[in-house]
Amino acid sequence: MTPDVLISEVGPRDGLQSVAATMSTEHKKRWLTALHAAGLREIEVASFVPAKLLPQMADAAEVVAFARTLPGLTVMALVPNVRGAEAALEAGAHKLTIPLSASAAHSLANVRKTREEMVEEVRRIVELRDATAPGVQVEANISTAFGCTLQGEVAEDDVLRLAAAAIEAGADESGLSDTTGMANPAQVRRLFRRMFAEVGDRTGAAHLHNTRGLGLANCLAAHDVGVRTFDSSLGGLGGCPYAPGASGNVVTEDLVFMFEAMGVRTGVNLEKLIAARTPLAEGLPGEPLYGMTPEAGLPKGFAREVAHG
Amino acid sequence: MTPDVLISEVGPRDGLQSVAATMSTEHKKRWLTALHAAGLREIEVASFVPAKLLPQMADAAEVVAFARTLPGLTVMALVPNVRGAEAALEAGAHKLTIPLSASAAHSLANVRKTREEMVEEVRRIVELRDATAPGVQVEANISTAFGCTLQGEVAEDDVLRLAAAAIEAGADESGLSDTTGMANPAQVRRLFRRMFAEVGDRTGAAHLHNTRGLGLANCLAAHDVGVRTFDSSLGGLGGCPYAPGASGNVVTEDLVFMFEAMGVRTGVNLEKLIAARTPLAEGLPGEPLYGMTPEAGLPKGFAREVAHG
Repeated sequence: MTPDVLISEVGPRDGLQSVAATMSTEHKKRWLTALHAAGLREIEVASFVPAKLLPQMADAAEVVAFARTLPGLTVMALVPNVRGAEAALEAGAHKLTIPLSASAAHSLANVRKTREEMVEEVRRIVELRDATAPGVQVEANISTAFGCTLQGEVAEDDVLRLAAAAIEAGADESGLSDTTGMANPAQVRRLFRRMFAEVGDRTGAAHLHNTRGLGLANCLAAHDVGVRTFDSSLGGLGGCPYAPGASGNVVTEDLVFMFEAMGVRTGVNLEKLIAARTPLAEGLPGEPLYGMTPEAGLPKGFAREVAHG
Repeated sequence: MTPDVLISEVGPRDGLQSVAATMSTEHKKRWLTALHAAGLREIEVASFVPAKLLPQMADAAEVVAFARTLPGLTVMALVPNVRGAEAALEAGAHKLTIPLSASAAHSLANVRKTREEMVEEVRRIVELRDATAPGVQVEANISTAFGCTLQGEVAEDDVLRLAAAAIEAGADESGLSDTTGMANPAQVRRLFRRMFAEVGDRTGAAHLHNTRGLGLANCLAAHDVGVRTFDSSLGGLGGCPYAPGASGNVVTEDLVFMFEAMGVRTGVNLEKLIAARTPLAEGLPGEPLYGMTPEAGLPKGFAREVAHG
């Protein structure tokens, strides 16, 4: 059975790069194995940035090589520039994701480039991909699409223009990220509807945060208007270091529970997914994990009814 | 400005009766004052049940009398039977809510009556109301409407039949409760759509839980199909004692944040609402409070934009 939605797990990249501790390569491998065993078929496993900026990602090439051994897995890597893309392609990533900020202020703060320069970076990465690894997918993810703590409001037209420019520059798809946890369901529906109108089936993932508890409601809103790929993070790892105590990304466990309970197939086995918290917790001792479903447990008979993994 | 939705705060009843500690009457008054100051205009303040069963509610009459002094507040009380209704009406409650279980097993466990007997109880309470306090509203709330941990699945037809019977017996409105935290957004939409088809504008509140993190998504789903009254609890107090660690009711703070962010006016001032956690925490020392919005804080400029309270 083909799943109805694609759950794209971002914890090993987004989650790990937002915590102070560094998970050992061995623990990463165990965690990836458990995520794959639960049925996840797309995982953002690493970020190709200078190790001096993000020591948590110093083993990116080794992690990608290992992830490639997991059958049927799309191995994703974040690359902020051509240099990162070269390294990710050399390591064998199946899919590259490039962050483009819709907020001018955040773009400079995050990647030290203007939005226009980032579109050119997308173009160069696509050229590199075409020349060296034509089967690799390139996703341009529009960050701060729903608001920016540096700049405040972000014009929807800016988001749409940037997504269209990224597609024009050759990206295969463009998703929208609620980087700062400011999205609400009305806005999610409006903006993704405009995305479908603007770039059609090149509309990529909804990357939504749970900063103020709206993560699942925003995912529901995105699903309502046709989004079928959802980024989330096991244990809600990741997110906003400037919102202390607030969990970051949408919690994969709760997201899978919501969809499966609705009859929307994810291809993920919830019991095995919850079991994948163990290698995560062991690899990051003391790090708080979020998730209501693991706390409450599955309703009686639930796993039997809906498990596909 | 008239609010677009009515947030019906149930913490002082649903929340307090689900914790082991008993909040003092003085603390209850302080907490109610703070909730009212935040702009809440309907609060379920007490349950009229024998004090030996629920010592937390022994001061129900005094709490109702106090709540009546708060201007513009609809003072709600839960009554499981005629005897409770007599006491609540004598105390001066403006609105009575009667729990009717859609699950046969839960009905016997909760109120020691069959579902049919509870419909007759509604009829007798309505007769009492008509004879002694004709201005008082009577709500019949269908509990376990989305599933039951005792009985398992609950037939939607049973829910609809029971709601229609309660309205026929004279209840002014009938809401649906996800007593055991099993609802999902698809089901919420389906069942409330059927409610509107069956009992029209007598469809009452959505009383949804956050047991597995779906609380806000379920509220959004209910709002999508026309529900305009939402039960919730400050700090998420209340819920399922048999789901350890799981928060219970939808968190009022996060619910108000979601609606206000969407442009749906609640009439509630979020900063004052968050301040109302202080008397709650002081009245129940050591009790864990939930809520992502209070943890993360409001986005910069948010309160200024949307505050009406």
